[in-house]
Amino acid sequence: MKKRILLISLLALLSQGICLAQPNQTKAVEDFKPSSVNQQGKQFPQVNSERRVRVSISAPEALKVQLDIGGVKYDMVKDDKGVWTGESAPQDEGFHYYQLNVDGASVPDQGTKYFYGAGRWGSGIEIPATDQEFYALKDVPHGLVSENTYFSKITNSFRRCFVYTPAGYEKDAKTRYPVLYLQHGSFEDETGWASQGKANLILDNLIAAGKAVQMIIVMDNGYAYKPQSGETNGRLASAFEEVMIQEIIPMIDAKFRTIADREHRAIAGLSMGANQTMRIIMNNLGKFASYGGFSGTSNYPSSDEIDPATFLDGKFKDGAALNKQLKIFWLGLGTKEPKPFPGSVGAFRKMLEKQGIKYVYYESPETAHEWLTWRRDLNEFAQRLFK
Amino acid sequence: MKKRILLISLLALLSQGICLAQPNQTKAVEDFKPSSVNQQGKQFPQVNSERRVRVSISAPEALKVQLDIGGVKYDMVKDDKGVWTGESAPQDEGFHYYQLNVDGASVPDQGTKYFYGAGRWGSGIEIPATDQEFYALKDVPHGLVSENTYFSKITNSFRRCFVYTPAGYEKDAKTRYPVLYLQHGSFEDETGWASQGKANLILDNLIAAGKAVQMIIVMDNGYAYKPQSGETNGRLASAFEEVMIQEIIPMIDAKFRTIADREHRAIAGLSMGANQTMRIIMNNLGKFASYGGFSGTSNYPSSDEIDPATFLDGKFKDGAALNKQLKIFWLGLGTKEPKPFPGSVGAFRKMLEKQGIKYVYYESPETAHEWLTWRRDLNEFAQRLFK
Repeated sequence: MKKRILLISLLALLSQGICLAQPNQTKAVEDFKPSSVNQQGKQFPQVNSERRVRVSISAPEALKVQLDIGGVKYDMVKDDKGVWTGESAPQDEGFHYYQLNVDGASVPDQGTKYFYGAGRWGSGIEIPATDQEFYALKDVPHGLVSENTYFSKITNSFRRCFVYTPAGYEKDAKTRYPVLYLQHGSFEDETGWASQGKANLILDNLIAAGKAVQMIIVMDNGYAYKPQSGETNGRLASAFEEVMIQEIIPMIDAKFRTIADREHRAIAGLSMGANQTMRIIMNNLGKFASYGGFSGTSNYPSSDEIDPATFLDGKFKDGAALNKQLKIFWLGLGTKEPKPFPGSVGAFRKMLEKQGIKYVYYESPETAHEWLTWRRDLNEFAQRLFK
Repeated sequence: MKKRILLISLLALLSQGICLAQPNQTKAVEDFKPSSVNQQGKQFPQVNSERRVRVSISAPEALKVQLDIGGVKYDMVKDDKGVWTGESAPQDEGFHYYQLNVDGASVPDQGTKYFYGAGRWGSGIEIPATDQEFYALKDVPHGLVSENTYFSKITNSFRRCFVYTPAGYEKDAKTRYPVLYLQHGSFEDETGWASQGKANLILDNLIAAGKAVQMIIVMDNGYAYKPQSGETNGRLASAFEEVMIQEIIPMIDAKFRTIADREHRAIAGLSMGANQTMRIIMNNLGKFASYGGFSGTSNYPSSDEIDPATFLDGKFKDGAALNKQLKIFWLGLGTKEPKPFPGSVGAFRKMLEKQGIKYVYYESPETAHEWLTWRRDLNEFAQRLFK
């Protein structure tokens, strides 16, 4: 009992220390629990009921240690054993990338599993969401996520995709399945959707509940460039569309038991991936019948009115024809997304409406340009596919 | 040209600086190249032809930064931009875990991909090996590595295994395959063999060259404990054998197209995994016919003479009977392994010889208790399996 009182006093002092360093913070509620994406056995980082993040790192000789999350750096406080502890202001629900700063060095927190985002493998934290059941790991039949390495002639390099096959795929050797091609955002990679995106768990849960049909999901890397001969000036042109159409789809159709027609093939992506996949479907309506754009459109970053005669080479000119060809045209956005996303998605929607093109629009409540928005998007979008 | 001279002078100065900090080091040969397991686009860490490791990190306000590799800490030197650089003495060929130390904080190097070892996700470096072709990523047919999540009733928890299925498994829906159960070492997990172990690439290459038969490889987590009721005293008893026999094998045989008999089932492991899997096969000779022990035996850590009447409940008492039951009994060890491994493996071999038990013994040249030893072990062992 004495120990507990001592601990509470210590934590109270610690909170005061942090308050001094961050005068705008009020005292944190002391119900912190380890984050669900911590490395096994690690007690920190932690999250409390206010959705604050508390981190801890041993750095006895450091002069200054900070928690860097959501674009804000929070000073941490050292105890007499050289352990620094600190916490953030309340965060949005869902998954966030973050890092620590030790005397000017930006480093991952050794407490968490690592995720690829912001162009590097780094720490992540999970703030429990009110609707987290839809992506929770449950005792339902689980599909497999396979790592599939292949050589691309177009890029002259080895590439990799992850392929989700639904539970039962391995047992029943005859059934063929529709396929969703699902892309990550900028500075992310092919690992994102089945890791921080929880695409496999979302589909496992939807399929177990009878809310989505069994489908294969292919998650590849949206960065693809041809080998360069001689000097290059500026940015390389993306070869991703060529790789998708000429290499990935034929490989998936050969290797997996797919239904290889446009009605049973969908393509979706988030942010940069939404932009890329919109171009891909509009250039290849013979290959895909359904599209999902999560927090992104091909007019990004512009909020200007779109002229359908010229936008994407006039691909949205004939609304009536598109309504016949497109089974699902789906757009999603978080209510807290920053500029320029609300403006560019808004301008795109106005163009669709002007053209009389049918589409579904979903808003993720209280989330920004982050993974809980995209998990919810996939959860909503997947329920409509291939029906 | 001037730039190059400046660069060389700068690097020469830098090397001298490092020499001062580490007086026993001679000047490094300046042919450093980025490590093959770096994150995409990252120039550091690097390795030179002497097998030295050079690391670099920006930490402008730090007082002391060190490279911690192979049990030795090397001081790094700060330039006028706050970037610290330093290098190690020559390392053994193969894969090594390492970390950086910034003012007392042990942190991963942001330049590398991360690997689970030493009980945490951390940095790794690949020192090119003279025989690296056997585990190189080549343009041969590649199998899939699937992440397979399941609920274990014995441990009352979700567990995970990675399953390698050879190239062609997806296409040919009728062929059934033998299975190798392959285990990691202590403070490692189910990700080790298909990541730093390169088990999938080793098998892809062996199968493509016609040196190994097509097989499934199952890589699970060797840590398994039953839920505890009430107070526990000391270490928990492992439930891994129960999980393997009662849950993992039936699940794999149900989910994948296996040949589900002892002749087509092998089990192997490294270090702790060698110890565990030896116990499992000896307790379950009706389930497995072949065994591989990489850098470990069940008499670990003792080098004392083994009494077959009592060792593992007398399981090695009847050598003649074992020779009829065991198709392959295989042991491997690196020539540079530290105590107690040479002693305990040596004592075990003496016991086998005394009992007249046939076995294969392989020594990996110039490697210690590390992953190049185990890659070579798998490469040698897999060629003998299921033939």
